Order: sequence, then C-alpha cells, then structure tokens
Amino acid sequence: MVAVPLNIFLLQEAIDELEWSAQDERTIHLKKVLRAKDGEKVDFGVINGPRGKGLLEWRSRGAVKISFDWDAPHVSDLLPLCLFVGLSRPQTCRKIIEQAASLGVAEIIFFQADKGEPSYGESSLWHKEWRHLLIKGAQQAFSCHLPRCLKVDGFEQARAVSGVNPKFSLALDIYEADACISTIKQRKDEPIHLAIGPERGWSAKERECMRGYGFMLCHMGPRVLRVETALVAAVGAISSAYWSGKGWAMR
Amino acid sequence: MVAVPLNIFLLQEAIDELEWSAQDERTIHLKKVLRAKDGEKVDFGVINGPRGKGLLEWRSRGAVKISFDWDAPHVSDLLPLCLFVGLSRPQTCRKIIEQAASLGVAEIIFFQADKGEPSYGESSLWHKEWRHLLIKGAQQAFSCHLPRCLKVDGFEQARAVSGVNPKFSLALDIYEADACISTIKQRKDEPIHLAIGPERGWSAKERECMRGYGFMLCHMGPRVLRVETALVAAVGAISSAYWSGKGWAMR
Repeated sequence: MVAVPLNIFLLQEAIDELEWSAQDERTIHLKKVLRAKDGEKVDFGVINGPRGKGLLEWRSRGAVKISFDWDAPHVSDLLPLCLFVGLSRPQTCRKIIEQAASLGVAEIIFFQADKGEPSYGESSLWHKEWRHLLIKGAQQAFSCHLPRCLKVDGFEQARAVSGVNPKFSLALDIYEADACISTIKQRKDEPIHLAIGPERGWSAKERECMRGYGFMLCHMGPRVLRVETALVAAVGAISSAYWSGKGWAMR
Repeated sequence: MVAVPLNIFLLQEAIDELEWSAQDERTIHLKKVLRAKDGEKVDFGVINGPRGKGLLEWRSRGAVKISFDWDAPHVSDLLPLCLFVGLSRPQTCRKIIEQAASLGVAEIIFFQADKGEPSYGESSLWHKEWRHLLIKGAQQAFSCHLPRCLKVDGFEQARAVSGVNPKFSLALDIYEADACISTIKQRKDEPIHLAIGPERGWSAKERECMRGYGFMLCHMGPRVLRVETALVAAVGAISSAYWSGKGWAMR
C-alpha cells in the first residue's frame, strides 16, 4: 500500500522546538514518505491555532530535531454547520468523523437514535480514536481547525449542546421529505443544523420532534445512500453553496 | 461486524424463476440478514431493466426457489453526469466506483493522468471486481441502473468515449480554480462532464488541454480533500441542484 503524504503535521501546542526519535511514526513519515532532507522546511500547525514551518535537523541515529516558526493565528475555515448524526456502526462513524473533519464542519454531534443499536456507543472508537480521526481529517485538509465532536444520548440533547445558532434546520429523510436539499437551502452562507439518521432511518417520534423544532425534512434525490455517502454529498451541497455565497476565490 | 441488509438483489436477466443452493452467499443473506420466511416477497431487479418481486420458497436442505413477477421497465434514474477520474490507488478507486454507482452518475471514466502511477491500472480491481462494485453500489441505492464504467489511457480518450453530451464541463482544481463549483453550475438539470484529478493533481499540460476543450476549473472551498471525498461532495452539489431543477418530490 502506497502511503499518502501528510499535508500538514498538527501539534497540540505552539512550542519552539521538539525532537522525535527514529522510531516515532512521524519521523518515519518525514523520512520515508516525504523524503525530507536536513535543512528542509515542512508545514506544521497547532490545533485550533496558527500554521507555521518546521525546520528539520537530522540527528545521529535517525532522530530529528524540528524548530518552529509560527505565523499569526488565522481565521477559522470551518463551515457554520452542525451535523447531528444518528449513531451508526463504528466503521461508518470512523469514515464520518474523518471526512467531516476534512470537509471542515463546525460540529459533529452523534446521538443515540431510536432505530440505532445501543451497543454502537460502546465501541473503542469513542475512547481516543475519534480524536485521532479528527486530527487525521484536518491534516488531510491542510487545516488547523478541528470540528467539535460529541456523543450524547438523544436528539433533544444533541440540539441543546450545539454551539451553532442555526438559520436553517434540515433533516435528511428519503421517506417523508418535503423537497430537495438545495431547494430549501438556496445559496446562503448562514449557520445550519443538519440531522442525518442512522442506517435504519428516523422513528415517527423523532420526525415529530424534529418538525416541532422547525426542521425541514429534505432529500438528495431518489437513491438510497449509505449514511457516510449521504453525509458527504449533503455537506458538499451545503459547502459549495456556502463558498460561492462568500465569493471565496483562489489565491 | 453487523451485515447491512441488501436493499435490492440485482440479476443479469429477467428470468421467471431460479434456485440458489444453501451455500450461495445470497441464500445466506436472505436467511441470516433479511430473515426472509417461506412465502415472503423480496425486492429484485434486473440490471438496466425492471424491478420486481421474488416470491421465496424454502426447499429441503436450505436451498431457496424464487419465482419472479417483474414490473414494467422504469425510466433510468441516472444523473446526466459523466465523471472523468484520474486513476488513483486501487483502494481509492474501489470507494469511488461503489459510491458513484450509489449516487447514480451516468458514466465513470478512469484515465491515466500525468501525475498518476501507471501501476494503478494493473490492479486486480480492473479484472472483474469493478463490475461487482458497480452492482453493489446500485443495490445499496435500490436502483437497477448501473453507470457505464471504463478505463482508458488519457484525458483526450476519456472525453472522446463519453456518451454524455455536456452543457457544462468542469474540472475540480484547488490550485487554479476560477470559482466555486456552485457559482459555475447554478441549479440546472443539464448534462455535465466533471473531471477529478488523481491524488497529486493535474499537470500543466492537462490543465491546458482541459481549458482548450472549454472546461472551467472550479473549487469546493479552501480545504484539500481526498479524491473520493471531493468526488462524493461534488456529485452531491451537482445532484442536489439537478433534483431541485427537476422538481422531483417524494412519493
């Protein structure tokens, strides 16, 4: 398997320098995948902080010393979008966390949906791995900004803990949708709550609760999509409307 | 690992009946995952043909006999969208084929891009597996319609073999994009060519060639996405505009 070069290394804090041993997987990545030379500068970032460059100095026995030069902190590039995701199988949630972190949503709040399996919340994913997946997704995206990621008991709680104050509240629902997601959403750059069901969909009670909170049920066409595919496609529809609304252009 | 229930079984031809042995993985799926009883009717379809119901009759020793009742052939639900995808790592192409088949694009044409690895085209994926992944994606989507999928030598050839006659030709390009995909695309239900580069992006020659053919270079925001994530997000942006343009509503 060919390793994909890391776009940026993210650190916890803006330190001045560090040393990684020859056995550290990041040292191995610098050497084997990036083939970084002595004196080379590599992209680094601080989680929810600045980007910068790391100047490499290869030491004896394969260790590497890195000295940092940090830029001014840059503005968050996260979308004002909170995803409420019905807890799905752990392998599905893994793909969701990494891809949603790459796409740069502000929040991912998993909740126990009525038609989900309670055991899904007990996976080892929810110990430390979820955090590594967030970092992996942001590193892929060449961004320092990580979504806030939480796991809560039910939809009401998910909605209560969100820090996104929405202008639109949407729920994907292929069975009872009122309209297509892009008819409802239009091309505005306003904060959104987007709820996505677990594999077996919403219960009648959840639909009633969501409608009570003003959620519009919307579809993405007639095809039945896996949770992770529907999520990435919906975020694509929302984010492209967002970036065109911002008039964001390339450097 | 919990198996996901199949939404529809696709067959090659509209036969009247068949028998599957107890060892057949489809029989096992009917029994273990769908828990289908004797006399039950299950969703079946014919590839690029009609949907229908299969009446199950459990035989001695665990085999199953199925008698079919086919509907009239239904109109294709494929998007008039042809994807030109720079050949990427086989595990990436697997995800692309299955997800693009679920999302229902009309064509997926892989080509050897200048910055791709020639060895990617020699993977076992390109013997029979690609076809199984197309079927798997369509079955997930509860559709009988499979994208046309081809692998060719280069971008010019990919363009020449496409059966989609485009109104828009777009190429994802985070480095030299003119505008956001949804600014260019607007919400129209017209045929599209969409080119997506390999992991290391386009060469200057490919960009020149695409511009010569009237392709607009577009972005999906500032974040660097994996090929498969960018592809699903872009198809999401295009398909949601398509379905809202068609005024397609739920049953």
